[in-house]
Amino acid sequence: MLFAGIKTDIAVDMEPQLIPLIDSLPSTVPFVGPEALERKRNRAFKARLGANESGFGPAPSVIAAIQSHAGEAWKYADPENFDLKHALAAHLGVAPTNIVVGEGVDTLLGLAVRQYVRESTPVVTSLGAYPTFNFHVAGFGGRLVTVPYGDDREDLEALLAAVKREQAPLVYLSNPDNPMGTWWAAAEIERFIDVLPKDTMLILDEAYGETAPADALPRIDVSRPNVLRMRTFSKAYGLAGMRCGYAVGAEKQILAFDKIRNHFGMNKLTQIAALAALKDQDYLKAVIARIIAGRERMVQIAAKNDLAAIPSATNFVTIDCGRDGSYALAVLNALIDRDVFVRKPMAPGLDRCIRVSVGLDEELDYFEQQLPQALAAVK
Amino acid sequence: MLFAGIKTDIAVDMEPQLIPLIDSLPSTVPFVGPEALERKRNRAFKARLGANESGFGPAPSVIAAIQSHAGEAWKYADPENFDLKHALAAHLGVAPTNIVVGEGVDTLLGLAVRQYVRESTPVVTSLGAYPTFNFHVAGFGGRLVTVPYGDDREDLEALLAAVKREQAPLVYLSNPDNPMGTWWAAAEIERFIDVLPKDTMLILDEAYGETAPADALPRIDVSRPNVLRMRTFSKAYGLAGMRCGYAVGAEKQILAFDKIRNHFGMNKLTQIAALAALKDQDYLKAVIARIIAGRERMVQIAAKNDLAAIPSATNFVTIDCGRDGSYALAVLNALIDRDVFVRKPMAPGLDRCIRVSVGLDEELDYFEQQLPQALAAVK
Repeated sequence: MLFAGIKTDIAVDMEPQLIPLIDSLPSTVPFVGPEALERKRNRAFKARLGANESGFGPAPSVIAAIQSHAGEAWKYADPENFDLKHALAAHLGVAPTNIVVGEGVDTLLGLAVRQYVRESTPVVTSLGAYPTFNFHVAGFGGRLVTVPYGDDREDLEALLAAVKREQAPLVYLSNPDNPMGTWWAAAEIERFIDVLPKDTMLILDEAYGETAPADALPRIDVSRPNVLRMRTFSKAYGLAGMRCGYAVGAEKQILAFDKIRNHFGMNKLTQIAALAALKDQDYLKAVIARIIAGRERMVQIAAKNDLAAIPSATNFVTIDCGRDGSYALAVLNALIDRDVFVRKPMAPGLDRCIRVSVGLDEELDYFEQQLPQALAAVK
Repeated sequence: MLFAGIKTDIAVDMEPQLIPLIDSLPSTVPFVGPEALERKRNRAFKARLGANESGFGPAPSVIAAIQSHAGEAWKYADPENFDLKHALAAHLGVAPTNIVVGEGVDTLLGLAVRQYVRESTPVVTSLGAYPTFNFHVAGFGGRLVTVPYGDDREDLEALLAAVKREQAPLVYLSNPDNPMGTWWAAAEIERFIDVLPKDTMLILDEAYGETAPADALPRIDVSRPNVLRMRTFSKAYGLAGMRCGYAVGAEKQILAFDKIRNHFGMNKLTQIAALAALKDQDYLKAVIARIIAGRERMVQIAAKNDLAAIPSATNFVTIDCGRDGSYALAVLNALIDRDVFVRKPMAPGLDRCIRVSVGLDEELDYFEQQLPQALAAVK
């Protein structure tokens, strides 16, 4: 008989103990999903404009690729992401060894934080920038140092000053920015990179790179060991639900991801979808044109309601509600009550705004119809 | 002008420094994928029997669900996995709060390790058990303590002794086991749980639970705070490429995953596929019957070649090549040369074997045809 003579452990009140760092964290989600709101409201949204997804969807060629390969879902994906990495490398004019592919930028952000951050490591970002980055910094025990936005843009000089003051090994910058939609020109980003301490890793999140003016994106320079450019298929390519992002950087720093990444984490159909999406640049161009038109329409909708839209280089428009944070929150809730899913910045200074993703014409029609009513209800 | 007066950082030989733990890790992959072997050989495999995937594929109903929802790939998945968690809870007879869904068991293993392991934490597993678990333990700086298999099974008494000796907060056990295919009866696993220190978390990996005899799986008891049962859609359900696993446990320990998991990491189509797969239990039953028949056939193929197949409760059969590890490795390589993708255990004592997944009849035909030739080539 197994365990002969060994008594059952009767210390009934004992249980596994989380390590202190993990124990100290809240069980939280960086964002509440629209599905959770729908369940709470017990009613579906009529316009899904809150998560900066692309309501235009992926290309028909991409949908067809997913459909025709669905039967291969039994195979693990190639852990090297060979085909996708090579296609991205050709597309960007870098070597495949300059690219790491991951299950969305969120995953890559977590892996990057894990490489450079341990308990008490200072990490610099802007107050109100991407919460999932902050979630990862907290998750690895880092000490988040935030600098306020200036004129609704991430403040490059203040970020640099904080990096130097704190001797931070990691700094986060999104360009174009989420949640404000603003951007810096390539020359200014390049200048920021030039003056950044060489041992500080910059995560340059370009999730919205495809929808930005051409002069907002610095030339890709993989000779820089302290820059990781992150891009995604979730936004303009319309594949948020497939989870595919990539980081571009110097070979040594890219190779380091292989130390800890979940090698078999990629979805097989995602590899196929991303490859097909990359191939269909005509569709991408058409979607970008629709996004730009949608942004312009959103500016008009805001103006018709005496609100100012902040100029945007992304697939969303952030609208200044013209009063304080609690007023903008009331507008947000009034829109949600009217079946419009939108979100808003929460940080002081930015919280006067709501953030509305560009969507299909009928969704913008619905938003246009509901916004005046929401504003009237709040006033 | 931005950064007026600030000079470019000219310390050109400086670069970002990985934290020491990460720096100490190799850039490695737990397994080489078949695609990498195909690229190296410059030839496709004719039988894909190495990764314990299910060549029978997912259910036609699942393929249809993926196809019909492909157009929704632009939406982020529900971060709460509400529908899937509720369906799993109903299926297993537990509460949704007893379940965490993740991007494959690999991801959940990493999250579990991260919760209980920091630098130098002792973690107990069997020598030769699942390498991806070991990859995560190394990745968080844990000290891996291994105990040898006994009679080709994980040695429960030796695992317990190691846990007590090391005061290990985490122990890994797979039942049925990979890579040997062996298993313990539920009563023996329950006894192991009874005698395990109450503050030691057991990860009970039941990836092959669906193909095991009914009496191999303990009743699910979510009152145990120190047991996490892990299951997957990758094996019998035929969805390895979609990346969906789940852990079942006590509410408090399940909730802890929300502290660190990638809330928006799930693939939208994966949620849909897993739900559809769970619904189609008839297909699952039919596949299990085919897997059992395939195992029996593999036993016969081994016997015809004067080799002994180890009894298996999984979707693969481990074949004892009857000599030492280098001989079995030569057999493996001879099979790969003949376009049969298989793998083998590498640990001392287990390394005399090759591991062959059950597959379609035509793949087993091909294996049956090539095995004698591979053996002849090696002899």
